[in-house]
Amino acid sequence: MDDNRVLIFDTTLRDGEQSPGISLNTAEKLEIAQQLARLGVDIIEAGFPIASPGDFEAVQAIARQVHGPVIAGLARANATDIDRAWEAVRDAERPRIHTFVSTSDIHIEFQMQNTRDDVRGLARAAVAQAKALCDDVEFSPMDATRADAQFTAEICQIAIDEGATTVNIPDTVGYTMPNEFQKYLLELYERCPGLADVTLSVHCHNDLGLAVANSLAGMHVGARQVEGCVNGIGERAGNASVEELAMILRTRADDVGGLWCEINTEEITRSSRLISRMTGYVIQPNKAVVGRNAFAHEAGIHQHGMLANPLTYEIMDAKSVGLARSELVLGKHSGRHALQHALEELGYSLDREAMAAVFARFKDVADKKGELSALDLEALMGDEMRVEAVGGYVLSGFSLTAGSEDPPTARVVIAGPDGTRVEQEASGDGPVDALMKAIDAAIGSSGKLLEYSVGAVTSGMDALGEARVVCEIDGRTYTGLGVSTDVLEASAIAYIRAVNASRMVEEGERVKEGV
Amino acid sequence: MDDNRVLIFDTTLRDGEQSPGISLNTAEKLEIAQQLARLGVDIIEAGFPIASPGDFEAVQAIARQVHGPVIAGLARANATDIDRAWEAVRDAERPRIHTFVSTSDIHIEFQMQNTRDDVRGLARAAVAQAKALCDDVEFSPMDATRADAQFTAEICQIAIDEGATTVNIPDTVGYTMPNEFQKYLLELYERCPGLADVTLSVHCHNDLGLAVANSLAGMHVGARQVEGCVNGIGERAGNASVEELAMILRTRADDVGGLWCEINTEEITRSSRLISRMTGYVIQPNKAVVGRNAFAHEAGIHQHGMLANPLTYEIMDAKSVGLARSELVLGKHSGRHALQHALEELGYSLDREAMAAVFARFKDVADKKGELSALDLEALMGDEMRVEAVGGYVLSGFSLTAGSEDPPTARVVIAGPDGTRVEQEASGDGPVDALMKAIDAAIGSSGKLLEYSVGAVTSGMDALGEARVVCEIDGRTYTGLGVSTDVLEASAIAYIRAVNASRMVEEGERVKEGV
Repeated sequence: MDDNRVLIFDTTLRDGEQSPGISLNTAEKLEIAQQLARLGVDIIEAGFPIASPGDFEAVQAIARQVHGPVIAGLARANATDIDRAWEAVRDAERPRIHTFVSTSDIHIEFQMQNTRDDVRGLARAAVAQAKALCDDVEFSPMDATRADAQFTAEICQIAIDEGATTVNIPDTVGYTMPNEFQKYLLELYERCPGLADVTLSVHCHNDLGLAVANSLAGMHVGARQVEGCVNGIGERAGNASVEELAMILRTRADDVGGLWCEINTEEITRSSRLISRMTGYVIQPNKAVVGRNAFAHEAGIHQHGMLANPLTYEIMDAKSVGLARSELVLGKHSGRHALQHALEELGYSLDREAMAAVFARFKDVADKKGELSALDLEALMGDEMRVEAVGGYVLSGFSLTAGSEDPPTARVVIAGPDGTRVEQEASGDGPVDALMKAIDAAIGSSGKLLEYSVGAVTSGMDALGEARVVCEIDGRTYTGLGVSTDVLEASAIAYIRAVNASRMVEEGERVKEGV
Repeated sequence: MDDNRVLIFDTTLRDGEQSPGISLNTAEKLEIAQQLARLGVDIIEAGFPIASPGDFEAVQAIARQVHGPVIAGLARANATDIDRAWEAVRDAERPRIHTFVSTSDIHIEFQMQNTRDDVRGLARAAVAQAKALCDDVEFSPMDATRADAQFTAEICQIAIDEGATTVNIPDTVGYTMPNEFQKYLLELYERCPGLADVTLSVHCHNDLGLAVANSLAGMHVGARQVEGCVNGIGERAGNASVEELAMILRTRADDVGGLWCEINTEEITRSSRLISRMTGYVIQPNKAVVGRNAFAHEAGIHQHGMLANPLTYEIMDAKSVGLARSELVLGKHSGRHALQHALEELGYSLDREAMAAVFARFKDVADKKGELSALDLEALMGDEMRVEAVGGYVLSGFSLTAGSEDPPTARVVIAGPDGTRVEQEASGDGPVDALMKAIDAAIGSSGKLLEYSVGAVTSGMDALGEARVVCEIDGRTYTGLGVSTDVLEASAIAYIRAVNASRMVEEGERVKEGV
């Protein structure tokens, strides 16, 4: 492989998916993984298979159905985890086991409550076991940036001796700074001779806002794999943003010493929006590369310069991230063929039955809204596909009265999975509360709203609204999303989806894990 | 001054406020400036006085009323701009004029359509004029990171010869990388001997996600002023995050060569939330330092380690950014005295009349919601203070019917500034649309909704909702925000505020400007 090629390891479905309030089902994870494959990431860390039966199932489904990228599963340094990870990824075209153990004294003492000698044994046994199962083994000394470099180097050498093909240095707590990280990595190279023969990887967290810069610093001294998440999600302040890394390599190609990656940057915007929508994690308007303003120029003089020469204030072309300037638009008179053509342009291929369902939904929305843009279509598609995937209860109708005088009252008609229809009425503290109580009465659920937000997919009086709820149901957290021209309807749909998700859960306590 | 002291130059009210869709009135800008003073920033860039009469008035009000920080006004390199900036800031305890001109060939050719020789003359004249008015003069060679270092150094030397006391190197388009930026600054030091005698400043944009790292790189080679915005807002992908810079200096104090700043980090959370609320710019959950998850630990093993020793996964203490773990709570039986005490703890001091208004609002919300947290109180306070400041129309009452069968219908009762009450009814495509149309009918306004979002202030079924609208009214963009336990009421309030804002505008076309 070209010495300057940087591999992109995407952990949106593992480190990202472990963020508070995110709970994706297998169908949603598969959809995201397919999009990551289109985006051109080299490795998809699909999850942590030991965490729960649901996690295992999702990793296995991705391993079996997603082609192109290496599919990795995470495992702590123990036999059960590693076996389970292998079971989940073994059917992939190119499977990888990723195992890890902390090398920092603070983790050894307080989190693992063992000794450095235990860590030596754990690393050796884990990598040996993984290697016996799988050619492609990644090892991470967790919390490395706060660990003794000599000890970390020793553990890395043990992992390499046992057959690890990638050694990943995580800045687990987002503590390091670019210069310091470079020095640390150079010291590792010096103290761990084997590192020269394997792929060095970096995994940076963003607690101090330096994840991308630290990753870049790592590449400059030899890292040829960088780990990150789309939209920079992940534990706490998240991981390095995959899209920022990719756009640095593309935009500054001449000045990064020949480093390059195979990300198809034109898929960035779609990947970002899909993942934002499915996780319910909003993207702030000023987020680099994918924020609503990233390519917007408000200052008057800036706009003047832009007209004369776009390069005066724009170092990236909006097209390069898949943000087309002239947007596809469908109207209420657009037929099935036009819709199918538009969806194909967006990368969706649907069978006849799915197409019929989507067309019916499209007509319904187009009647109210008039025109639909590419963004609207993607929101609707995401919405439709979630319905298909989840099954369960569906909102057939609702009505609501609210006002400043009396408490709001909602009436809902809910169709059950078995085709039954139930109608119920309830009042509440606010309109959303009233809708939720009516739904609870109809389904027999009992949810507590933890978070609620509404955003518009596109602008305009008749915009499609996306409502997102995070609820506690039976002691666990579920997310639901609904799209409609009516925010009340979107809210009701979102809550019903959360309830449906809670009904599908078969698993026990879910273990979460990270580096 | 201590050689290691880094000055924090906050441009939230200039570069930040120029972001699309943000339109703050003078009262709001004053409130933000007062909070920035509490946060301990060294310099507040209060605005661009030539932009419009409203901008001038806001900068002047801040110069006159905000004590502590230096108050700076921005001016292009021309006599009119500089005179106007001086008029606006002259009453400050410590005024500063900040003037700039581009040194990159692409800006010289396409934006200014002049020559390098023109730039020499403009810089010389501008700094000389500013210096004659004001001791404290900052000069920025715009787009410096894409400009010829030798020419930029020459222009900086001219500015220093004419009396500039701070030279600020802007990465206007967010193009540079830490190593490259360091090299560039070292080259400037070499080619511009005068730089050693003034304060070197850096102003980094985040288009590639590197603004904070580039600022840190700048400090490492001698910059003793860094420019940034709270929440990292600003043109396009925004500026360096003030809170991330401050927390790097605090968290890594031992490893940044003694660099320090005077930011009162305990004011970070409040500053961040105030500015998010007033600008309507959401903070993504995974935003470093101020995101909802920045101090949240989801992974099971992480939580286990956290209990044993918080340092296992937390490099910052949530208290250090003012995010108290035990939150103040008031109930519906809390009296006026308890409320006053709580507000004083939050930093608000109210006269008797304002207190009476806030108490009435508090009782109203507490009756519906039961308990109010510190966050709720701050949202209400912000809301109340905006009402006080804006005047105009007020929502007296509303009712709404919606459902899946018929188009929603809203009825509103609006009290005018003169005490009149108007009642109107309208139907619309969705409930928010119906409310807006009824309000338009009552007030005689005509707004087009560009953006709409709803978020909860705190979690819970009975949470306070904050609705935010961005509307086009009479060809201009206005923002409105409303807080209520009912999302429909919050939406109506938000829209009425936007209409009120549009009625207060006296100014002509507003010029926006940046470095």
